[in-house]
Amino acid sequence: MRNILIIGAGRSATSLIQYLLDKSEAEELFITIGDISIQNAQKFTDGHPNGRGILLDVFNEPQRKKAVESSDLVISMLPARYHVDVAKDCIEFGKHLVTASYVSDQMFSLNHKAVAKGLVFMNEIGLDPGIDHMSAMQVIDRIRAKGGKMLLFESFCGGLVAPESDDNLWHYKFTWNPRNVVLAGQGGAAEFIQEGTYKYIPYHRLFRRTEFLDIEGHGRFEAYANRNSLKYRKVYGMEDILTLYRGTIRCVGFSKAWNMFVQLGMTDDEYTIPDSENISYRAFVNLFLPYSPTDSVELKLRHNLKIDQDDLMWGKLVELDIFNPNKKIGIKDATPAQALQRILEDKWTLQKNDKDMIVMYHKFGYELNGEQKQIDSNMVIKGDDQTYTAMAKTVGLPVAIAALKILNEEITTPGVQVPIAKEVYEPILKELEDYGITFNETEVPYMGYNPNNVAG
Amino acid sequence: MRNILIIGAGRSATSLIQYLLDKSEAEELFITIGDISIQNAQKFTDGHPNGRGILLDVFNEPQRKKAVESSDLVISMLPARYHVDVAKDCIEFGKHLVTASYVSDQMFSLNHKAVAKGLVFMNEIGLDPGIDHMSAMQVIDRIRAKGGKMLLFESFCGGLVAPESDDNLWHYKFTWNPRNVVLAGQGGAAEFIQEGTYKYIPYHRLFRRTEFLDIEGHGRFEAYANRNSLKYRKVYGMEDILTLYRGTIRCVGFSKAWNMFVQLGMTDDEYTIPDSENISYRAFVNLFLPYSPTDSVELKLRHNLKIDQDDLMWGKLVELDIFNPNKKIGIKDATPAQALQRILEDKWTLQKNDKDMIVMYHKFGYELNGEQKQIDSNMVIKGDDQTYTAMAKTVGLPVAIAALKILNEEITTPGVQVPIAKEVYEPILKELEDYGITFNETEVPYMGYNPNNVAG
Repeated sequence: MRNILIIGAGRSATSLIQYLLDKSEAEELFITIGDISIQNAQKFTDGHPNGRGILLDVFNEPQRKKAVESSDLVISMLPARYHVDVAKDCIEFGKHLVTASYVSDQMFSLNHKAVAKGLVFMNEIGLDPGIDHMSAMQVIDRIRAKGGKMLLFESFCGGLVAPESDDNLWHYKFTWNPRNVVLAGQGGAAEFIQEGTYKYIPYHRLFRRTEFLDIEGHGRFEAYANRNSLKYRKVYGMEDILTLYRGTIRCVGFSKAWNMFVQLGMTDDEYTIPDSENISYRAFVNLFLPYSPTDSVELKLRHNLKIDQDDLMWGKLVELDIFNPNKKIGIKDATPAQALQRILEDKWTLQKNDKDMIVMYHKFGYELNGEQKQIDSNMVIKGDDQTYTAMAKTVGLPVAIAALKILNEEITTPGVQVPIAKEVYEPILKELEDYGITFNETEVPYMGYNPNNVAG
Repeated sequence: MRNILIIGAGRSATSLIQYLLDKSEAEELFITIGDISIQNAQKFTDGHPNGRGILLDVFNEPQRKKAVESSDLVISMLPARYHVDVAKDCIEFGKHLVTASYVSDQMFSLNHKAVAKGLVFMNEIGLDPGIDHMSAMQVIDRIRAKGGKMLLFESFCGGLVAPESDDNLWHYKFTWNPRNVVLAGQGGAAEFIQEGTYKYIPYHRLFRRTEFLDIEGHGRFEAYANRNSLKYRKVYGMEDILTLYRGTIRCVGFSKAWNMFVQLGMTDDEYTIPDSENISYRAFVNLFLPYSPTDSVELKLRHNLKIDQDDLMWGKLVELDIFNPNKKIGIKDATPAQALQRILEDKWTLQKNDKDMIVMYHKFGYELNGEQKQIDSNMVIKGDDQTYTAMAKTVGLPVAIAALKILNEEITTPGVQVPIAKEVYEPILKELEDYGITFNETEVPYMGYNPNNVAG
């Protein structure tokens, strides 16, 4: 038996664990799930002969080291900042490591030690980052193999609610960490390059500089810019590319409505609200509006944001019950962002029968034999239910497949890495197809960066 | 002779030094000016029998300690972060200290040592902070002495160009550190309280939530909120006040126009622009606008900020020559804020014959014998010329007067302090009157916080 240790058994671990347990008999695997909650750790393996759950506190060094030492490969599904101690244990005991997180500087500093010990430290192998890397590099390598030169790369991804479960005016529910959604785009201007010109969008304009994306059979979506597109130049070896843009996909109209919260200052996470526990939703809204002895919060907000009487944006606010004077925020020392998250969770939490949906869209512009061409490629994945969500499948399956291929020595190049080598992405993408994770690719006329897709 | 050491001989030190040299004969003072530039240090005392300039590098510990040791009182006009080493020397050698800077935590931590040695460490005794503290506490103490209870305190201050030197559409020139002007309002939401309700304005809305102020004989001004009004509750002992608001004064229309730069993202100081040295003003502007293969930077900016054809805002941009494709930013690794500052300095630098102007405005609302009342108080000071500016007078004279009164033991209470005690502010305000620094006080009807003064 080969021992796989999975650290951190969150909601997104379902498909990952299911895949490995399903293969455990044929592949001679034994799966140990370590979590800070023993109940969490055990619920996934309940009764399975090749799995068990254990209590594992990553801050308990002896406990952590013992678990790593008795495994052959470690999968860390913890938040990124907790990986590094696990990674150091993997170096010490000579174990491979797989994570779905971005490579931190600390993680990368272990590269030479991992190489020296022949260990594969595979990171960024979930959805985004993960499937985006693999599916993009597959097309880019194909273009290059023919002698093509990359001119444009745009890449978009979003976690949405599936249309059959979409029952609110925002066309959005939380399918992932709500806090990350509320804070999205903060921390600095979005940077990218379009037709050779650097472009910057400050946070407070981000949600008004969206682009449209049309996907056959699924209709129109919109996307706002991610903060850090430019780092992909180096990762993908496209230092002289003219257009490089990465964005987050939402249903049409979401960003313009979300911008209301940004404009008011409700997404601020830098200060706490006095007596936040006891203030009402309505009083929370009023914190961001000018004082008036007579005018209602409603009228002040309409005026402040210049919302016309017949604007659907208004309905979106009313739907959230944000003017309710009786509902309390109920969180001590809450920041505006935390208070807003509480209000949104009332309405945007996935219900028992809701399904989620992942949408990914790539555009590859290139020149081949003097001709400019473009390939568009997209992926739409729906969840089966609230356990095997699209998010769990698209994050967990690439992790699981990579882990098994490393154990089986199909992926062997050692070191701290992300899945951009053909040796890595080809077999994984191939196997993902068996699980319905496929891309729809079309050739389209090359238009360069197309400003007519820009809204607002 | 009593020795006064002045560290840091910047442009704002003229009135400070002039005052002390003028009194040096009668008061038996000898003034030593220490600066990192010996030329700077010597130019102020040129030929005066009771003054000299010396080379003084505050990072040169033996040099600094020697200078402090041989003085009776030290005035530090350095940036606030350099005061603390000087302050520690003052403790060591038993010298009084005067600064015009905010009390840092480090400075305040020296309080018990200063008290133990009987030393006066007077801070925040320039203009703002300084004259604002003194003039406000004088009125507040008077209201309290009569048995009145404070309901409202609003306080505004601004450094402007005098009307006779105002020759641009912005009605603004840099009369103080330009970098502070470009970065004004950044670092967190503005917080204040109006009629018992907390209010927050995010940075990107700050310049659109201005108030108007009318000053007889000077017309209408506008003000935007300072970040930290609430800390004055404790300083002034007004913990239960209903309205507390502090703001920065500008000429009408400045803030709405400045907001264009904020909206575009040009005031960002968090990242550097690639090849900033060589990009043109026009290319700088284009960094913040969507890409277009055909549309001009001008049209994109008009559309982006929704500037109508006949809007004066447009003229303000054109006046700055911001669309010039030939003028270069010329600063290596510039942030957007640094590049914008460079563009503004072309047009907003005070010319040889220009005069500056300081405007301060306080509103005091209170209840006395069951009646609600209000006192408004304002001060308008113009500079004599480019040497004896209004800024140099209003910052330097209170510092100089305080220093002499400490030496003469008219101000004796020891410790790290700001000028809010009657013992301190009364004689200083009295003497400032001799230099034309006076307040015009009027009783007005109490209206509470008046939303009708709010623009936009």
